[in-house]
Amino acid sequence: MSTAAPARKDFLSVLDFETADLERCLEIAAHVKADRSLGRQAPTAGSLEGRHVAMLFEKASLRTRSTFEIAVVELGGNVVSLQPDAALGKREPVSDVARNLERWVDCIVIRTFSQKVLEEFAAAAPRLRVINALTDDQHPCQALADVLTLREQWGQVKGRTVAYVGDGNNVAVSLVHATLMLGINIHVVSPDGYALPDWAVQQAALAARHGARLRLFTDAADAVAGVDAVYTDTWTSMGQEAEAEQRRQIFAPFQVNDALMAVAKPGALFMHCLPAHRGEEVTAEVFESATSVVFDQAENRLHVQKALLSMLLSGQHH
Amino acid sequence: MSTAAPARKDFLSVLDFETADLERCLEIAAHVKADRSLGRQAPTAGSLEGRHVAMLFEKASLRTRSTFEIAVVELGGNVVSLQPDAALGKREPVSDVARNLERWVDCIVIRTFSQKVLEEFAAAAPRLRVINALTDDQHPCQALADVLTLREQWGQVKGRTVAYVGDGNNVAVSLVHATLMLGINIHVVSPDGYALPDWAVQQAALAARHGARLRLFTDAADAVAGVDAVYTDTWTSMGQEAEAEQRRQIFAPFQVNDALMAVAKPGALFMHCLPAHRGEEVTAEVFESATSVVFDQAENRLHVQKALLSMLLSGQHH
Amino acid sequence: MSTAAPARKDFLSVLDFETADLERCLEIAAHVKADRSLGRQAPTAGSLEGRHVAMLFEKASLRTRSTFEIAVVELGGNVVSLQPDAALGKREPVSDVARNLERWVDCIVIRTFSQKVLEEFAAAAPRLRVINALTDDQHPCQALADVLTLREQWGQVKGRTVAYVGDGNNVAVSLVHATLMLGINIHVVSPDGYALPDWAVQQAALAARHGARLRLFTDAADAVAGVDAVYTDTWTSMGQEAEAEQRRQIFAPFQVNDALMAVAKPGALFMHCLPAHRGEEVTAEVFESATSVVFDQAENRLHVQKALLSMLLSGQHH
Repeated sequence: MSTAAPARKDFLSVLDFETADLERCLEIAAHVKADRSLGRQAPTAGSLEGRHVAMLFEKASLRTRSTFEIAVVELGGNVVSLQPDAALGKREPVSDVARNLERWVDCIVIRTFSQKVLEEFAAAAPRLRVINALTDDQHPCQALADVLTLREQWGQVKGRTVAYVGDGNNVAVSLVHATLMLGINIHVVSPDGYALPDWAVQQAALAARHGARLRLFTDAADAVAGVDAVYTDTWTSMGQEAEAEQRRQIFAPFQVNDALMAVAKPGALFMHCLPAHRGEEVTAEVFESATSVVFDQAENRLHVQKALLSMLLSGQHH
Repeated sequence: MSTAAPARKDFLSVLDFETADLERCLEIAAHVKADRSLGRQAPTAGSLEGRHVAMLFEKASLRTRSTFEIAVVELGGNVVSLQPDAALGKREPVSDVARNLERWVDCIVIRTFSQKVLEEFAAAAPRLRVINALTDDQHPCQALADVLTLREQWGQVKGRTVAYVGDGNNVAVSLVHATLMLGINIHVVSPDGYALPDWAVQQAALAARHGARLRLFTDAADAVAGVDAVYTDTWTSMGQEAEAEQRRQIFAPFQVNDALMAVAKPGALFMHCLPAHRGEEVTAEVFESATSVVFDQAENRLHVQKALLSMLLSGQHH
Repeated sequence: MSTAAPARKDFLSVLDFETADLERCLEIAAHVKADRSLGRQAPTAGSLEGRHVAMLFEKASLRTRSTFEIAVVELGGNVVSLQPDAALGKREPVSDVARNLERWVDCIVIRTFSQKVLEEFAAAAPRLRVINALTDDQHPCQALADVLTLREQWGQVKGRTVAYVGDGNNVAVSLVHATLMLGINIHVVSPDGYALPDWAVQQAALAARHGARLRLFTDAADAVAGVDAVYTDTWTSMGQEAEAEQRRQIFAPFQVNDALMAVAKPGALFMHCLPAHRGEEVTAEVFESATSVVFDQAENRLHVQKALLSMLLSGQHH
C-alpha cells in the first residue's frame, strides 16, 4: 500500500490533507488495525525505525498521548517526552525550541493552546514534521479517528449526515473538516454565543466535496431530525472550568438523551470524543446504548495516528 | 519453567495468588535474578514482546516505578507512562479510563489511594491486567520481594518467625498475607490505635497454611523475643505528614535499635521497605548492620515483578 | 576506535577527564556525528545494549534531557525517568537513593543544585556511573559540545583564544576547564561581583596545557579584542529570577552586540549555550549572524554525550 507523503510537511489541520491523503490515511489505518488484531503490531507499510518523535503536551491528556506513544513504538520509532515547563515560549522563543529540536528529532506531537504557536513552530523548522495533538482551534487527529469509525460502521459514508450537538469547539471544527472532505453532510447546533466560529464556516466551503453541506441550527431537535449519527462533546473544555456552572445552564437544552436520539434515524450512532460527563452533555442511557461507538472512536485514535505517522515520516532520510 | 497464569486476572492483593502461584512466582524470580547476574536480562520464560504496560502513579515512587519499568523493558515490553492529572476519576469515571486503556494496553501498574478504586478499575476492563503498586490498604509487590529475600537468606522458610514492629499499614498487611501463605509465623506489634486493621486479621486466618500463625502484641520486646527477622517501616507514610510530630511520640517505644535486636534470635535479619528514617523507626547502627537486608529487598522488587509480569501476561494473545 | 574508559568512574566535571580522555571523547563524537548524518545511528564503537540509564532532573531542561535520552536509545540502551519529588534527599538520604539505584541501573544522569550532592551520590554507589547534567557549579557536558564545535570550525584549536562575556557561572567554569585542557586561551570578563569563583581560577591553573592561559578582565572590549570566538550566556540563570531586573542593569555593559563583535578578529564565532534572550545578553543581529554557531553547539550535545556514555559504559559487565 502506498504511504506516499502528503503535500504538506505538517499536520496542523485536517485541511493540511487533500481528500486523497485523507482517503489513504483511512485505508492504512484500517489495515494496521486488522494487522494488530492478528497480533501483528509492526507496520504493513512505513516504518519509524531510527526515528525520534517528541511529545510536548501543555494540557492534560489520556487518550492522545498514550495512543501516539504506542503508535510510535509499534512503528519501530522512539518517543522523546519533553517537559512542558521547558518549552513553548517560556524560557526561549518558540522558534528557537523548534530549531533545536530539528537537530535531533524527526517529528513532534504538540498539545498547546494557540494554533498560531503551532504554525510558528512548524515554520521555524523545515526538517521537522509537526502534528497537532489539540489546540484551542482544532483537534484534527480526533477527527481522523471519528471518520474511521464511521467507515467501519457504514462502509460507504458519502451522502450520510452527522449532527454535532453542543459547543462549536476545536472538536467540532475538525469534525466539520473531515466529514465534508468525505462527502458527509454535517449539522452543527450550538447555543447562542457558542456557535462554530466564522473562520471555520468559511473553511468548510473549501473543504466540501461531492456536494456535502454544512448546515447550522439553533434547535437541537431540528439539527438531529433524521441524521445517521449524533456527536457531542463536554460542555466545559480544559481551561474553562470557571465557566462550568454558567455553561451547564446554557447548554441544558442541548443534552443528548433518549428523547433527542428518538428524532434521529432509527439505529443512529452516538459519538463522543471523551471524557464524557453523564447527566450533562449526554445521559448514561445514551452513552451506554447499543449504538454508542465512543470506545471505538477512542481505540481508533491509535490506528489513524499510526497511519498518519507512517505517511509523514516514511520515505524521509533513506 | 512453567509460567502458567494464576487463576485471577489481576494482582491487587497477595491473596489474589494461591500458595502455588506464590511459590511459582518466587521460583521464577530466583531464576531471572540468577540470569541477570550473568548478563542475561531477557526472560528464561515468558516474554512481553509486543505488549504495552501502562504506569499510573498518583503518589511519589522511586523503587516501585523504576523496577517495574526496568522489568517491562527487560522482558521485551513497552512502558506507557500516564499523567496522573489525566486519570482516576478526576476528568472522567475510573471505569471509563479503564475501558479506554484496555483498547491499547495489556496491563496497568497503579499506585493510588483507595483499594476500591483499583478493584473498580480492574472490574471495568476484562481484557486488562491490573497490578497494585501500593494503595492505602495493601502493598503486595513489596511483600513478594520480602519473602524472596527471606528465601535467599534461609532456604527453607516454613516454621520461621518474622516480627513486624510499627504501624499496621499497607506494608504490614501484605507481609502478613505472604508470610502466612508460606508457613512463616508473623508477629505484629503496634501502638494502640495503629494496629493491623480488623479486616486484615480476618483475612490472615484464610491465608494461613501449614499451621503458621499471626500473633498481635502490644509490647515490642515481647513481639521480637526469639524471632528470626525484625521488620519495620516509616512511622509517617505518604499523606500523613501533618501527623508526623504526634506519631514520633507515639511510636518512640517501637524503635528498632540494638537493644530490641538483642532480644531476637542471634543473627536475626533486619528488614525495611524503604525509605528509612534513621533515628526514628530504626537506628543507623541497625540499618547498617551486617544482618540488614534492606537493599536486597529493594533489589528483589525488580526480580519478583519480572516474575509477576511473566505470569500475568505470558500466554495471552498468542 | 578505542572507547577505553577514563580513569574515573564518574563525569562530574571536565576535570574528571585527562586531556587524553577529552581528545578521545571528541574523536568518538565526530565519528558518531558523521555516522548519524549517513543514517547510521547505532554506535561505531561501544554499545549500551542491556544497560539502563536513569535520568534525574531537578530543574527544567530541553536540550540536555532530550539529547541524553536520544543518545542512550541510539546506543541501544534504555532510559529510566525518575520523578524528582521521589529523590535526592527529600524522602531519604541521597546515599540511600544511590545505593538503591545501583542495584538496577548502570548509569545516572543528574541535574541538581549542589555539586556536593552529586559527589555524595557518586561516592555512595561504586557500581553506578554518575554524569553531571548541570549543577550550580559546573556544566561539563555543555563544555564538551562547545569544544567539539570549535574543532569543527577550526580544525586545529591549539593557540586560539575564546572570550567568555558575562556571568562567571557553571557554563563559564566548565568552558574554562575544557578550553585550557585543549591548549585554547580563555578570557573571562564579568561585572564586579559576578566573576569566575576563586576555586575555579585555581583549578584552571591545573587544567592548563601547552601554555594556554586563563585571563580575567573587567572591560568587555579589552577581553574581546582580537579573539577567535565570543561566548555569552543568560544574565539570569534558573533560580535567579528574583534578581532579574537588578542583573539587567549590572550586565548591560556586557551585551554582545555588533559593536563588541567588531573588536574581535574578523570572522570570529558567536557562541551561546541557550536559551538566549535577544536584546539582553546578545542582540538578535549577532545571534542570527553568519558566524553564530549556537545551534551547532546544541546539536553537538547529542554527539558528545553519545561518546561520553560509550566511554563510561562500554566494557563494563561483559
